Amino acid sequence: MKVENTSYRTIWLSETDDRVVRIINQLALPHSFETLDLRSVEDACVAIEEMQVRGAGLIGATAGFGMYLASLQAGNETFVQDLEHYAEKLKSTRPTASNLAWAVDRMLTKISLGETKTEKRAVAKSEAQCIADEDADFCRKIGEHGKAIIAEISAQKAGAAVNVLTHCNAGWLAFVDYGSATAPIYAAHDSGIKVHVWVDETRPRNQGASLTCWELGQHGVPHTLVTDNLGGYLMQHGLVDMVLVGTDRTTRTGDVANKIGTYLKALAAKDNGVPFYVALPSSTFDFEMRDGLKEIPIEERSPDEVTLVTGLAKTSGEVTTIRSCPPGTKAKNWGFDVTPARLINKLICERGVCDANEEAILDLFPEKQKK
Amino acid sequence: MKVENTSYRTIWLSETDDRVVRIINQLALPHSFETLDLRSVEDACVAIEEMQVRGAGLIGATAGFGMYLASLQAGNETFVQDLEHYAEKLKSTRPTASNLAWAVDRMLTKISLGETKTEKRAVAKSEAQCIADEDADFCRKIGEHGKAIIAEISAQKAGAAVNVLTHCNAGWLAFVDYGSATAPIYAAHDSGIKVHVWVDETRPRNQGASLTCWELGQHGVPHTLVTDNLGGYLMQHGLVDMVLVGTDRTTRTGDVANKIGTYLKALAAKDNGVPFYVALPSSTFDFEMRDGLKEIPIEERSPDEVTLVTGLAKTSGEVTTIRSCPPGTKAKNWGFDVTPARLINKLICERGVCDANEEAILDLFPEKQKK
Repeated sequence: MKVENTSYRTIWLSETDDRVVRIINQLALPHSFETLDLRSVEDACVAIEEMQVRGAGLIGATAGFGMYLASLQAGNETFVQDLEHYAEKLKSTRPTASNLAWAVDRMLTKISLGETKTEKRAVAKSEAQCIADEDADFCRKIGEHGKAIIAEISAQKAGAAVNVLTHCNAGWLAFVDYGSATAPIYAAHDSGIKVHVWVDETRPRNQGASLTCWELGQHGVPHTLVTDNLGGYLMQHGLVDMVLVGTDRTTRTGDVANKIGTYLKALAAKDNGVPFYVALPSSTFDFEMRDGLKEIPIEERSPDEVTLVTGLAKTSGEVTTIRSCPPGTKAKNWGFDVTPARLINKLICERGVCDANEEAILDLFPEKQKK
Repeated sequence: MKVENTSYRTIWLSETDDRVVRIINQLALPHSFETLDLRSVEDACVAIEEMQVRGAGLIGATAGFGMYLASLQAGNETFVQDLEHYAEKLKSTRPTASNLAWAVDRMLTKISLGETKTEKRAVAKSEAQCIADEDADFCRKIGEHGKAIIAEISAQKAGAAVNVLTHCNAGWLAFVDYGSATAPIYAAHDSGIKVHVWVDETRPRNQGASLTCWELGQHGVPHTLVTDNLGGYLMQHGLVDMVLVGTDRTTRTGDVANKIGTYLKALAAKDNGVPFYVALPSSTFDFEMRDGLKEIPIEERSPDEVTLVTGLAKTSGEVTTIRSCPPGTKAKNWGFDVTPARLINKLICERGVCDANEEAILDLFPEKQKK
């Protein structure tokens, strides 16, 4: 997507040195646009763990490229053990993200097919690139399927903008390109359908305020920032036509783990008859899990994310961290919640749109049927 | 309640000059504890409008003392007109707060009974004090009624702490003393019942983080700060025994207007079988209204409250305002939402506990029966 009118992906192999992977440092957004070089699997781990990169698809792509960097580092004598060690290291960086383990395992399998070390490294490079390309392609397809839903709502609104509420950043910054929840919005906007996005701030890390507002703004999509508390009011007053979010892991039964607070918006959507959509590439499915609430591991993050907020100081213009609560206040900070399938109207995948239940999901993914 | 082991109310007549009203400047909390002098009705308007004082009961008490200050300012020849002008000015500062108009009208009625100007001013002084004393007394009674509910839950928990989730600050800082939602908590804690409070941060103004954490901390009540997004997760995982909030206006049918985001917590409580309680002094009822969603006016506040956050800078230790979103981001900021009566288990009033429906409410307030 566009940044100051130049097209970017969120991750790519350096044009000048194919032993270097480049990313956009999302921690610097929206205050400055910076790129970073990843030169080792350790750099990739830090990028994921510190959230220089974040979001389901981009975490997967970074893990893919991370395994490529690992293949360059792995010793000649200890290649397999080293690679497995690096794989574990990568997988432990963000426990909730399904794409992480998926990408690492896919890389391990492919790399094992190479006969020589050189071949294994070449396979690693092309497979990492393939994961990234697939991610972008899947998001583009999600955009096309979701655009049809927005177009249908638009047709009933006689030219008024379709109001979409989204939570967190399931934008192109969370993937390699286009995004999941944002893909239908970009596709609709680019084809001339009027859309307006309510952007949840998304405490504690403010990815809505800092990332979603930034990317929608760069692309010229009308949007309004709101606190996470406002969504219920908006839906009670008919100001939301659809809720559209991403997911970090979705079970075969359609339960959706997504950024903390998503569940509250799904409850409000249900209570007010507002359709609730979840957009996801198939890599986000965890076909092994049936009960999202019981089975999906939920990451607990640092209480500092709750007690401290970082932004640009109004007077000094410096990036500054502040505290609103009394010193020493205890805080808890689980990163995700699970929205049960019963609250979800449709899942939007690269293969098409389906209801959030096992039968409908397996109709789209027949290869996942259990015999 | 206690501040550094000294007992305070949130508003009081100066001990040395009865033409001066003193308040705690809540905008300075939790970073510093300051008191302010109100010397005119204009000072009282600023205090309410700028939220140096806030919360249903304290707004009412400040309006009462504001009318007393107005009575000192009103011209001898133009006393009645002046007083009515000041009354309108006070009423226009915060449109959602039911106690505001209630206190102003009560003062107008009482003042009109005085025969001479001197008598009117004396009546104004005693009536303002009476409103403040009543508020404190009502909150103390709410505490006793609510304590019985907490004690009942405690009895089922075999000595484990009762986990109460609260939103915003319906604490003693929002009243003259004790608070509404906090009154049962303080009463339970003081009588040796183990309680632990989940404190919603309460964006955009962070009254949970800055005020509720502060007052619970000063009083020694165990508490944990969470983002507004976390409540659903907590209830899904059995970590909340009851939700207990205040209200800014409640209809005769039991619909509750409270800080934006309250409705989302009520939905989560319903979905997880967690009882949802609203604590309120009777002055918060608006017996003229039947349909909260349609009739209660909801204040829209400055978008700056969403785009900017103020706190103590980690490095400099200065109170600093920061921005997390891109410059120029548009934001919307309605201050309250309405929780329909169907989501509320019980109302806790100074007269007792009742269901959230017209019949039960009018059983407690038979004088409000319409013939």
